[in-house]
Amino acid sequence: MENIGRRLFLGAASLAGSALLAVPRRLFAQAPPSSAGPADPTLIEDLVAANRILADQGVVDGYGHVSVRHGANPARYLLSRSLAPELVTAGDVMEYDLDSTPVDPRGRTGYLERFIHGEIYKVRPDVMAIVHSHSPSVIPFGVTGVALRPLYHMSAFLAGGVPVFDIRAESGEMTDMLVRTPALGRALARTLGSRNVVLMRGHGSVATAASLPHVVFRGVYTEVNARLQAQAMALSSNVTYLDPEEARKAEAAVGGTVSRPWELWKRKAMGK
Amino acid sequence: MENIGRRLFLGAASLAGSALLAVPRRLFAQAPPSSAGPADPTLIEDLVAANRILADQGVVDGYGHVSVRHGANPARYLLSRSLAPELVTAGDVMEYDLDSTPVDPRGRTGYLERFIHGEIYKVRPDVMAIVHSHSPSVIPFGVTGVALRPLYHMSAFLAGGVPVFDIRAESGEMTDMLVRTPALGRALARTLGSRNVVLMRGHGSVATAASLPHVVFRGVYTEVNARLQAQAMALSSNVTYLDPEEARKAEAAVGGTVSRPWELWKRKAMGK
Amino acid sequence: MENIGRRLFLGAASLAGSALLAVPRRLFAQAPPSSAGPADPTLIEDLVAANRILADQGVVDGYGHVSVRHGANPARYLLSRSLAPELVTAGDVMEYDLDSTPVDPRGRTGYLERFIHGEIYKVRPDVMAIVHSHSPSVIPFGVTGVALRPLYHMSAFLAGGVPVFDIRAESGEMTDMLVRTPALGRALARTLGSRNVVLMRGHGSVATAASLPHVVFRGVYTEVNARLQAQAMALSSNVTYLDPEEARKAEAAVGGTVSRPWELWKRKAMGK
Amino acid sequence: MENIGRRLFLGAASLAGSALLAVPRRLFAQAPPSSAGPADPTLIEDLVAANRILADQGVVDGYGHVSVRHGANPARYLLSRSLAPELVTAGDVMEYDLDSTPVDPRGRTGYLERFIHGEIYKVRPDVMAIVHSHSPSVIPFGVTGVALRPLYHMSAFLAGGVPVFDIRAESGEMTDMLVRTPALGRALARTLGSRNVVLMRGHGSVATAASLPHVVFRGVYTEVNARLQAQAMALSSNVTYLDPEEARKAEAAVGGTVSRPWELWKRKAMGK
Repeated sequence: MENIGRRLFLGAASLAGSALLAVPRRLFAQAPPSSAGPADPTLIEDLVAANRILADQGVVDGYGHVSVRHGANPARYLLSRSLAPELVTAGDVMEYDLDSTPVDPRGRTGYLERFIHGEIYKVRPDVMAIVHSHSPSVIPFGVTGVALRPLYHMSAFLAGGVPVFDIRAESGEMTDMLVRTPALGRALARTLGSRNVVLMRGHGSVATAASLPHVVFRGVYTEVNARLQAQAMALSSNVTYLDPEEARKAEAAVGGTVSRPWELWKRKAMGK
Repeated sequence: MENIGRRLFLGAASLAGSALLAVPRRLFAQAPPSSAGPADPTLIEDLVAANRILADQGVVDGYGHVSVRHGANPARYLLSRSLAPELVTAGDVMEYDLDSTPVDPRGRTGYLERFIHGEIYKVRPDVMAIVHSHSPSVIPFGVTGVALRPLYHMSAFLAGGVPVFDIRAESGEMTDMLVRTPALGRALARTLGSRNVVLMRGHGSVATAASLPHVVFRGVYTEVNARLQAQAMALSSNVTYLDPEEARKAEAAVGGTVSRPWELWKRKAMGK
Repeated sequence: MENIGRRLFLGAASLAGSALLAVPRRLFAQAPPSSAGPADPTLIEDLVAANRILADQGVVDGYGHVSVRHGANPARYLLSRSLAPELVTAGDVMEYDLDSTPVDPRGRTGYLERFIHGEIYKVRPDVMAIVHSHSPSVIPFGVTGVALRPLYHMSAFLAGGVPVFDIRAESGEMTDMLVRTPALGRALARTLGSRNVVLMRGHGSVATAASLPHVVFRGVYTEVNARLQAQAMALSSNVTYLDPEEARKAEAAVGGTVSRPWELWKRKAMGK
Repeated sequence: MENIGRRLFLGAASLAGSALLAVPRRLFAQAPPSSAGPADPTLIEDLVAANRILADQGVVDGYGHVSVRHGANPARYLLSRSLAPELVTAGDVMEYDLDSTPVDPRGRTGYLERFIHGEIYKVRPDVMAIVHSHSPSVIPFGVTGVALRPLYHMSAFLAGGVPVFDIRAESGEMTDMLVRTPALGRALARTLGSRNVVLMRGHGSVATAASLPHVVFRGVYTEVNARLQAQAMALSSNVTYLDPEEARKAEAAVGGTVSRPWELWKRKAMGK
């Protein structure tokens, strides 16, 4: 479906083989990007685990994807080929540049919405890992304009606001709801701004963080917070959310403990 | 319970055996229909998988059924004998004509409501597969008249409207709620019209599609959309649904990715 | 804890051994009741399956119990010793008379609330099996006075009304909420009257039926109906329930298909 | 992260080794506390089971902890090292004094919030076991001020009131929401007072009891009651809770049956 990367690669290879001197500049611009080299096997293992955990914890179903920045080059990121997250193995991981062009697709099809990842990595050097999901309890917040807010310390990372990306307003037209172009990816990254999480109206959400364990943690507790917030709002119109300073302190404290659930989740998801 | 087909078959066989020339026309009209021949084993395998997936995903419980049009003859369809979907194997699959008369029942009892399938196949040549279920989150919509509407791209196929079939209004009498006659099947097909999904008041729903993976997808995401729509409506009276044009585009885009969850669901359901 | 039955049995045995002629009438009245003989192994197997299924389907947790009338004598019933239903095996099944006195306790402790079973069997000869549970979604109906009503054909057996037993009103005093005496059992049976299901305020519910598969079916779909009715009421104040005549017809029709889920449930619960 | 106990231990050991006579009093005050001796292996086994059960029953996820008072010395308690409860084994159990100083940490990191346990044990001699969790359905009650009240006999232990600990009000400042100091632990114990359960605003809850099976029971049914109470309140503004006398009697009666679910839960959780 999306073998553009591969086609370009073969094209470039044959051009290289014929040693032409006058290749038009534009063609070289479309050549496959160079690789940052083999990724740390531990990072790949964690990326596979992140995929499985997100499925096991109900954040993703047959759809959704998680990426991580390449350890050796911040201008490259790693993301599975188009596949249900629960089925991802190390061999499915592809390398992309920040324009979301695959380095060496070898016939593998990428996710249509890989631009979510590349465009956020471009403008957020602090972000090292990204989850896109249709996490169920979050969907109703995206279509009602009810603000998602942290009601306990586990979701303190939601403080600072959770904006909603409305693809219709941003693109100025009726779309198929998918972030399938660099321009849409840039618009989404703009809406995200400096926050950790952005909702997508009629679609899903994106969580960002400084590592794979942290981004998985944020994916899981964004879902939990959405469920609990809806329950709290049903109980009472008077819900006390974390104060911004409480949230800032709690995020720092809880952030230091993420390895605890990560080890549990990994063992459960990989033991299947 | 419903061995009418078998009785007729044996009757016809013995009549044929005695080589009568003057068999009344009406008797032949009731003879078992001819077979379209053995179905493609891959189609049978997918039908078995569809049954198991729908159970695994919580769309059906001990009740509900899924059918597919015979690949060799659009006037025949395949449907399990009366059995809980989770227990269906290839040997349970029966062939029916569009009057829902079994070709070769061999003593197997058919579902009471097989007419749902036959009557829809008659008037909807585009429909190749049908799911009938009591999918839980959908039931409340059928009994309240609250319109089921697509709130995200995964359920874009709900755009165009989800009508409610009220068996009392359609039949003009108090029934046992079951679509147990050709006439009731025809009435249900009329209410469905050209849409993809129809709700049945006090009973369940029916999803239709152009293939087994697509109809399973629609069964699953009709349930998910119902759950999320109820949550969104509880959060706010101001829910933004997909615009019809967004839905049309999203359905086309998402429809092209159905093999992704299908492969996952199949592996999970058949691995049990 | 409740070895009264055993103590009485041993007492009676020694009295019999000493061949006294002038044993006071009252003592004989308290002697262990006679056995109806060994129960049909299939009935015991079904009773064990019913216990496991109710746990597997979420109707019971560590608490709750299910009984069946003895096949050879309608004045005897079978019920596990005091044990979590999921752990019940054939060896745990005890025989009781309708006063809920064990025939041969052999040191086994009975459920405190066995009188629920005995007292209903006494006044409802049509009832052959009884489930008592704390089925979760049903509890809120018992404490709010909101009537549980059948919103689809699967729960048509709820038509005719689901009364609420308030142990405080019936006993005229503050109790520990348990039906731990014959008098409380009789009061519960009176509230049940000729219906199929009765709720117990601040406690749980009781379902009755003409067989083990049917009573398990009613336990399961009482829970499902409660969950779906609550969702429907949250969606709209205008819920259409089954008309009494629809319910009567649906119950007859669906009642004939109970072996379908029963076989599925049994295979799932016993395969664990 | 928190190897203070260990550092002090090594310090004290070397001081002891050099047999100094004039060790300043303050240093001895900080020396590791003495051990109450090896704990009963059955108690350790039950503590491990309690950890696993709470995870299996959905009361804890990667976070939360459960402790028990040491059988040989009421001034010591047992608690796992900092670890997800589902992963706890006997070797992870550490011994603490009531100031929550570990007796023999051997490099193991303790939970940041161990002071919850120590400070409650100090002022509540009747409490022998404590659960701290983020039990999901309970969170909305802690942030809305809606009183958690027993709506059925299984949660009768909630009668007498469930206070809410607001760490901001108690500490007079913005915190990271964690009970990470003795002073905060004392404040929490004060809010708990003589009750069985206390909620923590924006955080979680604490259940206390006279044994591990009872505290696990309370953890489980606090969660169930919260879920059912929210459902009841959604159904009607007129919910009948247990009368205080009913609750007192029900608690005594149900309390005597806790071994029934405990055996079930243990078998399920440890069989994994």
